[in-house]
Amino acid sequence: MTVADLTERELIARIQARLPAPPAWMIVGIGDDAAVVEPARNRLEVLSVDAFVEGVHFDRAFTPPGAIGHRALAANLSDLAAMGAEPRLALLSLGLPATFPAEDFNALIDGLAALAAQHRLHVAGGNLTRSPGPLIVDVTVAGSVKPRRALLRRGARPGDELYVSGTIGAAAAGLQMLRASTKMDLQCPPLDSVSSVLEPCVLRYLYPDPRVRLGSILGRNRAASACMDLSDGLADAVRQIADASGVSAIVEAEDLPIEPEARRWFESRGADPVLEAIAGGDDYELLVAVRPRTRRRLAAAHRHGGVALTRIGVGAAGGGVVLRRGGASEPMPRGYAHFQ
Amino acid sequence: MTVADLTERELIARIQARLPAPPAWMIVGIGDDAAVVEPARNRLEVLSVDAFVEGVHFDRAFTPPGAIGHRALAANLSDLAAMGAEPRLALLSLGLPATFPAEDFNALIDGLAALAAQHRLHVAGGNLTRSPGPLIVDVTVAGSVKPRRALLRRGARPGDELYVSGTIGAAAAGLQMLRASTKMDLQCPPLDSVSSVLEPCVLRYLYPDPRVRLGSILGRNRAASACMDLSDGLADAVRQIADASGVSAIVEAEDLPIEPEARRWFESRGADPVLEAIAGGDDYELLVAVRPRTRRRLAAAHRHGGVALTRIGVGAAGGGVVLRRGGASEPMPRGYAHFQ
Repeated sequence: MTVADLTERELIARIQARLPAPPAWMIVGIGDDAAVVEPARNRLEVLSVDAFVEGVHFDRAFTPPGAIGHRALAANLSDLAAMGAEPRLALLSLGLPATFPAEDFNALIDGLAALAAQHRLHVAGGNLTRSPGPLIVDVTVAGSVKPRRALLRRGARPGDELYVSGTIGAAAAGLQMLRASTKMDLQCPPLDSVSSVLEPCVLRYLYPDPRVRLGSILGRNRAASACMDLSDGLADAVRQIADASGVSAIVEAEDLPIEPEARRWFESRGADPVLEAIAGGDDYELLVAVRPRTRRRLAAAHRHGGVALTRIGVGAAGGGVVLRRGGASEPMPRGYAHFQ
Repeated sequence: MTVADLTERELIARIQARLPAPPAWMIVGIGDDAAVVEPARNRLEVLSVDAFVEGVHFDRAFTPPGAIGHRALAANLSDLAAMGAEPRLALLSLGLPATFPAEDFNALIDGLAALAAQHRLHVAGGNLTRSPGPLIVDVTVAGSVKPRRALLRRGARPGDELYVSGTIGAAAAGLQMLRASTKMDLQCPPLDSVSSVLEPCVLRYLYPDPRVRLGSILGRNRAASACMDLSDGLADAVRQIADASGVSAIVEAEDLPIEPEARRWFESRGADPVLEAIAGGDDYELLVAVRPRTRRRLAAAHRHGGVALTRIGVGAAGGGVVLRRGGASEPMPRGYAHFQ
């Protein structure tokens, strides 16, 4: 059975069956022309949208449908995290090929709903349509942040230190591993059944863990002068913060927290682990600029955010981004670009 | 030149160049991980998303890019109108084929921006990605409505009268006209240059006028017991309101405000104008249920909403929807269905 055998109403019923009861602030949820919600009291609203398109952001040959749903929402949660915002709601806009199996539809929604529940995010509505080509998962999220606590890209100053959360390169290595293994037994297993058998890097690619709690703490305790997430890779993120803030940045290659499994993988392929790790997207870690005098606040962020923060460089006067390794300096290589 | 010759940053710059200055309540607009906005004071927030996918919702062979942008936003504005909400902001998620001409990209944004400006709606952010197949225009909108003034689908009661705004069937006829004319000189002209030369029905299909002001007045003066828009046709809308409200509905075929040009077109093709007009989507008129004792409030809605309201039927006890014509009754034919 495919989604073409179901009516729009039946598909919506399947989504509703996979969601928890709506919270009191959701006055009207799924099923009317639009959702109606009470804004969070004394908060600013934070809004973001991200599209996951088959053939661009995922390959159904090796991405189980649950992971597609998980990743599409994770990318959005990561944007909220990068602003220091707490998640509230999501709208799902799905474009479904007529051949998309109804079971995969269930699994996709399950993957998304599981991550939503983990972050107390509620699906308020959405849109379903046919797609004449790729599977399309377009997710809009809304979150809230206290006034003057939003983390922007533009606040870094010369002398600020640059930190990155967790490890980098894992998702890029995981994607390469998936592409390299032509016959994988990965078509369907959801997160709980695969986590024990998958390579850690593959797991990081398929089921990234957006740094929602870390971002929220960084916003509340004013530890960060600038912040963004690594959806398009570390090299891109450093450049974006430097450009938005009107500063230059120096990144120390030796200090980069490259995931050890990823480093081994890149080396086994004859590739440069540093270049692969900084260019690779999909890590969904946070890049954070910190004034030296507020550095001690990072300890609390680390303690409660559940993830390590590693100093990787420093902001300086001027413009441009430099990668320093073995005493030499080179311009930071370009990261992942969508339109090239 | 196509969009593939431009970087993501250049495309974003083109969008920004086509938008007015952001309002004071937009703290962070385009260019960060997410938008940050002040909620409207003492209002509920209304959120909706609609996707326009090439090959499903439009055909680039006869839909100028400006009309694609206009229609994608109009569908969302119509959802806000159906809730009685006032528009505030939009997020644009675009999936662009590599072959999409850069000039058409400009025109698409121009068409969307012109309609946004007309309704004081501001673009707060979005997402750009490649598409391996169709052009995808996914728009999320947010609006605001006073507490307890949102227009829902579920408030109709037996005895309520059913009204529809404007005329119906025009967009369906316009689409048929466009499909019938194989060689059209329609590739590029924006709204102002084509309005004088296009058939009125074609104009209604390409550049629908969402009933934002009417919806807002109906919400404020509590004229409507239930409301929804006709994006999927009148037959579908009557059924949805009846089902959501737990009532039946009787629609009088003779009372339907079928656009005269559309009626002539359908008759010239040997089709039944009533069936074509109630099944045809894309009209973006409002269907409104009204308690007989609040009927006089419709006069004010008509006066200030800038569009006629025509009584087309009545709600009754029980379930189901009936179409009455020439003394006989028949079950309401099915409207447009996305998954069939």
